[in-house]
Amino acid sequence: MPDLPMTLPSEGLPAHVTIYEVGARDGLQNEKAVVPVEVKAEFLNRLADAGLTTLEATSFVHPKWVPQLADAADLLAMLERRPGVDYPVLVPNERGLDRAVEAGVDHIAVFASATETFAEKNLNRALDSQFAMFEPTVKRALAEGLRVRAYVSMAFGDPWEGAVDPAQVAAVGRRLVEMGCRQLSLGDTIGTGTPGHAEAVIDACVAGGVPIDQIAVHFHDTYGQALANTLAALRRGVTTVDASTGGLGGCPYAKSATGNLATEDLVWMLDGLGVSHGARLADLVETSVWMADKLGRPSPSRVVKALAGAD
Amino acid sequence: MPDLPMTLPSEGLPAHVTIYEVGARDGLQNEKAVVPVEVKAEFLNRLADAGLTTLEATSFVHPKWVPQLADAADLLAMLERRPGVDYPVLVPNERGLDRAVEAGVDHIAVFASATETFAEKNLNRALDSQFAMFEPTVKRALAEGLRVRAYVSMAFGDPWEGAVDPAQVAAVGRRLVEMGCRQLSLGDTIGTGTPGHAEAVIDACVAGGVPIDQIAVHFHDTYGQALANTLAALRRGVTTVDASTGGLGGCPYAKSATGNLATEDLVWMLDGLGVSHGARLADLVETSVWMADKLGRPSPSRVVKALAGAD
Repeated sequence: MPDLPMTLPSEGLPAHVTIYEVGARDGLQNEKAVVPVEVKAEFLNRLADAGLTTLEATSFVHPKWVPQLADAADLLAMLERRPGVDYPVLVPNERGLDRAVEAGVDHIAVFASATETFAEKNLNRALDSQFAMFEPTVKRALAEGLRVRAYVSMAFGDPWEGAVDPAQVAAVGRRLVEMGCRQLSLGDTIGTGTPGHAEAVIDACVAGGVPIDQIAVHFHDTYGQALANTLAALRRGVTTVDASTGGLGGCPYAKSATGNLATEDLVWMLDGLGVSHGARLADLVETSVWMADKLGRPSPSRVVKALAGAD
Repeated sequence: MPDLPMTLPSEGLPAHVTIYEVGARDGLQNEKAVVPVEVKAEFLNRLADAGLTTLEATSFVHPKWVPQLADAADLLAMLERRPGVDYPVLVPNERGLDRAVEAGVDHIAVFASATETFAEKNLNRALDSQFAMFEPTVKRALAEGLRVRAYVSMAFGDPWEGAVDPAQVAAVGRRLVEMGCRQLSLGDTIGTGTPGHAEAVIDACVAGGVPIDQIAVHFHDTYGQALANTLAALRRGVTTVDASTGGLGGCPYAKSATGNLATEDLVWMLDGLGVSHGARLADLVETSVWMADKLGRPSPSRVVKALAGAD
């Protein structure tokens, strides 16, 4: 369908959106099978070739916890880092930071919780004491000239606590920004949020002192709401959207196979809205078909399903 | 998740939306298997019990074309028509109208095309001569006191012609309204539309003289855009949304298994936005699980997948 989607802009949207691609890290860390490092490197190279400019490459979490990404250093050594492409990595602590710096990384992400229960379960910390855990990592990263992003997980709903107060998300976000994190990624980790909720969380963060240009959104499509929520966030002035090529990954705590917003579904909407982003849809779809073959299962992306079966 | 979705309204939305449920007709006519009439009747009774108030029950198209719905008269005879529930049926021509009236129907829908090629392929008529085909049916229905809705198919994209000019959709819509159709259902039959496109088609219809309260939207989720498009349509003032419980059905011309917007995914968003609609999500999900068992395949609805696997 060469002339589809038809481009018809809508009022109140940004002219450009940065797609923060999480497929290689958030996607592959949630696969049962360990993907060979050569496949990961080719995946990232293909994503760069497809025009994506921010590729979260891997994680320096301890291999005991995430064996899928135990090859982080090897992957970064093997990767063809393309000019103009940013390759952030997830770093949980100072030991991870050491390994990342050694691998030549200049952009890291830390992983915080918006709720007490998830902080306890995922970080083994009380909500309030998680900051003491990140602080030495963030401070040292900044001192070494690295950029730092912070994920705020369970920023909408939490499988144990239910609905999460936007004011609580804003308080967590503010502390991370004050610590020096340049970008917050507000994560709807279980995918229960809806558009008014997206607006409320963004508004609470802005009211709490987080500049809108430091806010990214990370929606999961578990309840089918990710793209509608993204549209609402764009109207609020958000210009960075997390997505995963082919819809890889998701949250192991969410009770469904459907997880991350698929980059292709996002790109279809942005192309239709005339919002620039730099990626080429056909190349992304081709990459997802290739990766689905490697993983032995079809992509959950609706666009991939629709186009991969096309003439 | 008893307190999810969290209800957080968004500005500029209607207080109430009428869900026009198409699962029993549009959904089941696209199933390969013919569903027994008793199952169809129970499906419709369950949907009414779940609080839906508009249930398109069946179609009086010739059984040669749609054998899945050959039992239309039997189904209507068997159905417990609940007070306050509207049971429109699809009627392609005067012969179908005769059968519908005989069955005690008081609300019909006719099926028009927005494009030349689909008019030829589906109706065996030129675009402009399709009106002559509907007119006697619509006029007689109105004379007998029936209400008439008109579907406008391929109102966004067409698999043969590509992008469709919103002005062409508006011209078709205007003729149908002038003919006496009380409601237009603007159909994104192949699911390629995006939110700005949804706004443009609605705006064109309104500019062409169709009152906003006579416009319904019918989005397919083939490219994952249905809910974002619905959100855009609601902001334009549309208050009737077509959806299919469990996401049953779709367009045989769209190259993907994913078709109609799932009623459950719509209800999740409306519940989150605090927009009333009358349906109870848990009952809809239970009905979809029951129907998936009858059809022998899982529902494509994301909400059904997420909740049906829950504790």
